[in-house]
Amino acid sequence: MPDISKRGQNIPASPIRKLVPFARAARDRGTKIYLLNIGQPDIKTPENAIEAIKQKDIKVLGYSHSAGNETYRRKLVNYYKTFGVTLDYTDIIVTTGASEALAFTLMACLDEGDELIVPEPFYANYNSFSLSGGINIRPITAKIEDDFALPPIAEFEKLITANTKGILICNPSNPTGYLYSKEELIALKKIAKKHDLFLFVDEVYREFCYGDKKFHSVLTLSGVEQNVIVFDSISKRYSACGARIGMVVSRNKVVMDAVMRFAQARLSPPTLAQIVAEATLDTDPSYLKEVIKEYDNRRKTLIKRLQAMDDVICPNTGGAFYVFAQLPIDDSETFCRWLLEAFEYKGATVMMAPGSGFYATKGLGKQEVRIAYVLKEDDLHKAMDCLEAALNVYPGRLKKEDQGMEVLV
Amino acid sequence: MPDISKRGQNIPASPIRKLVPFARAARDRGTKIYLLNIGQPDIKTPENAIEAIKQKDIKVLGYSHSAGNETYRRKLVNYYKTFGVTLDYTDIIVTTGASEALAFTLMACLDEGDELIVPEPFYANYNSFSLSGGINIRPITAKIEDDFALPPIAEFEKLITANTKGILICNPSNPTGYLYSKEELIALKKIAKKHDLFLFVDEVYREFCYGDKKFHSVLTLSGVEQNVIVFDSISKRYSACGARIGMVVSRNKVVMDAVMRFAQARLSPPTLAQIVAEATLDTDPSYLKEVIKEYDNRRKTLIKRLQAMDDVICPNTGGAFYVFAQLPIDDSETFCRWLLEAFEYKGATVMMAPGSGFYATKGLGKQEVRIAYVLKEDDLHKAMDCLEAALNVYPGRLKKEDQGMEVLV
Repeated sequence: MPDISKRGQNIPASPIRKLVPFARAARDRGTKIYLLNIGQPDIKTPENAIEAIKQKDIKVLGYSHSAGNETYRRKLVNYYKTFGVTLDYTDIIVTTGASEALAFTLMACLDEGDELIVPEPFYANYNSFSLSGGINIRPITAKIEDDFALPPIAEFEKLITANTKGILICNPSNPTGYLYSKEELIALKKIAKKHDLFLFVDEVYREFCYGDKKFHSVLTLSGVEQNVIVFDSISKRYSACGARIGMVVSRNKVVMDAVMRFAQARLSPPTLAQIVAEATLDTDPSYLKEVIKEYDNRRKTLIKRLQAMDDVICPNTGGAFYVFAQLPIDDSETFCRWLLEAFEYKGATVMMAPGSGFYATKGLGKQEVRIAYVLKEDDLHKAMDCLEAALNVYPGRLKKEDQGMEVLV
Repeated sequence: MPDISKRGQNIPASPIRKLVPFARAARDRGTKIYLLNIGQPDIKTPENAIEAIKQKDIKVLGYSHSAGNETYRRKLVNYYKTFGVTLDYTDIIVTTGASEALAFTLMACLDEGDELIVPEPFYANYNSFSLSGGINIRPITAKIEDDFALPPIAEFEKLITANTKGILICNPSNPTGYLYSKEELIALKKIAKKHDLFLFVDEVYREFCYGDKKFHSVLTLSGVEQNVIVFDSISKRYSACGARIGMVVSRNKVVMDAVMRFAQARLSPPTLAQIVAEATLDTDPSYLKEVIKEYDNRRKTLIKRLQAMDDVICPNTGGAFYVFAQLPIDDSETFCRWLLEAFEYKGATVMMAPGSGFYATKGLGKQEVRIAYVLKEDDLHKAMDCLEAALNVYPGRLKKEDQGMEVLV
């Protein structure tokens, strides 16, 4: 039997999805599971978007342009204007989800052995896209005590070598919910200019910002037009994760030309989903307003509940729909599995994403979990009841004096 | 401005799509263009498949399983049975088109510097998927005088090194229309077993076989279950290119596990299109029968017309919906561009794919074009009228004695 490749061996299993068999077994035993582990919202997709596909007269379900339908790209230009970004439609290439946007762009910009600096904890799949292309992620640890703010720029400077090609952030952040300030973006701009680096920003959660904090797109920064590349998606904004419509946005024509050639090789993004995606742009603005309000209420509830638990640290967040909390536990992978295998409270348990999967530095995140607030408040309360009860009886609960001490492997 | 990567520079532009600007200009001048350049059929997608999406009650357009919906995968098992292949549903992973199936599988099986033997001319995008992963294609030239049959196995043996990981064919072939015989597949099986190689087969055109010739799937060969990996798609079978639903099929669990991890990183194949894809399997068998008959008629017409032209060589084909013909021209890229820029006959011209884009060996294919018979017979006749008229006046027409002499660059 021929051997598979080294990268085939090394591509990590999704840290979130590897708990699925245990969840299935729990469900089969009759346990109710509150799913807070993945970013699959329970929010309804705009009806007008679903309706658009039903109204469309399709005789031949043909390829679209490799860069996506021009009508859609032109309409997106107007959408970007709403948050102060002026683009030409050729600055946008429609992709099969933000996943493909990331995969193509990293391939187009970085060669094998090139390095990408990424503040950790970060979206776990950045690992897979990098590994596929032989790209090395150099992590910089953001601290829970700073609410996972941008680490000091001096830390970035320390990591920059001749192989460093770019910096990648997610704003607002999956998994931490941190919303980067304008000052932080300007700091990144300066270092990108100084060292001639790409500044890759995943902005798929940009609408979901809360409280007084305002979202700033990296696309509004002047002087780094050739460095900045944004990844975007309709998945979260319009609760259309299954559409698989994302985009690469950049004014750097050389990058866009290369991304386009990758896009040509896979022929076209999904045609049906582009009809849905184009229609989302006609959604009444009240839809997003209500969704944001709903998430904000959930966020407040979740943070309040977590902060009220003994020995739990939960930062205040500014965006997205995640919190990244520290729990008094020995190992988050063990804990999350134990919740599914060996625990229930009032016939229910909770599924969360172990923190360790979001760090590149080995040993970090063992006391942390990512919680997605993709359930209604009432269910969030019940899920937090489960978590609270679980922490009281979990055999691997840490004593107060051990908490915050990373257990290194 | 930061530099893009070497692979970003090297990924070729689609040889087919780079003529698009010239076609657009011709169209804007009012010239009718017969589009024989890409495999986008004019055949109607089955109505029941389109209807399925209209009937579906979708509230939240959520992710599907990373491997595709289980209901769809289980139904595909029955489809594979219809041509003698017995599978478990876990032997199938649903992908975003056969393109993603190829990209993930090559990444999972080959490392940078590994080699893949591919008979040329071959589907041009195999180049891009290989280049992305640093994989080297080693071509073996199939000859037009043999109808592009499998080159002698001795030629394969000559190319095998310690870095060779697999052989890739397309059966029936895009771009040549050649249908591999059982004997040829057995010859490939033997060499794959002997040298412990993967045998990758792109079978997306398997229904489209003509005359007495019968299709044989590589999945029916015994003794190479661990070597064989098949790429498949609903794009051509059901004229649903825009759905972007393909699949990887293999009984090799190690490969499938690695492909699955790549699939997890991109979360899910398109959800809407999977509804369409699942419904295609309920299409009345008369649909495919009629489509095959339609293509066969077109094929006969096209071959007859081409073979009747002076100094044109057109092999008889056994499958797919392409012919790969040799024309008395100096350079097919120049000729195809000239057809769009400087020629018209009765207000029309023809767009074809230059042959050179389908060869890895430089200098080959300069007198060849790929013609997709994706238009009705009447239009095919008019397109051939154009081509015939064009060959009479094309300034780069070769004299009889020069034809077949490859003009090396």
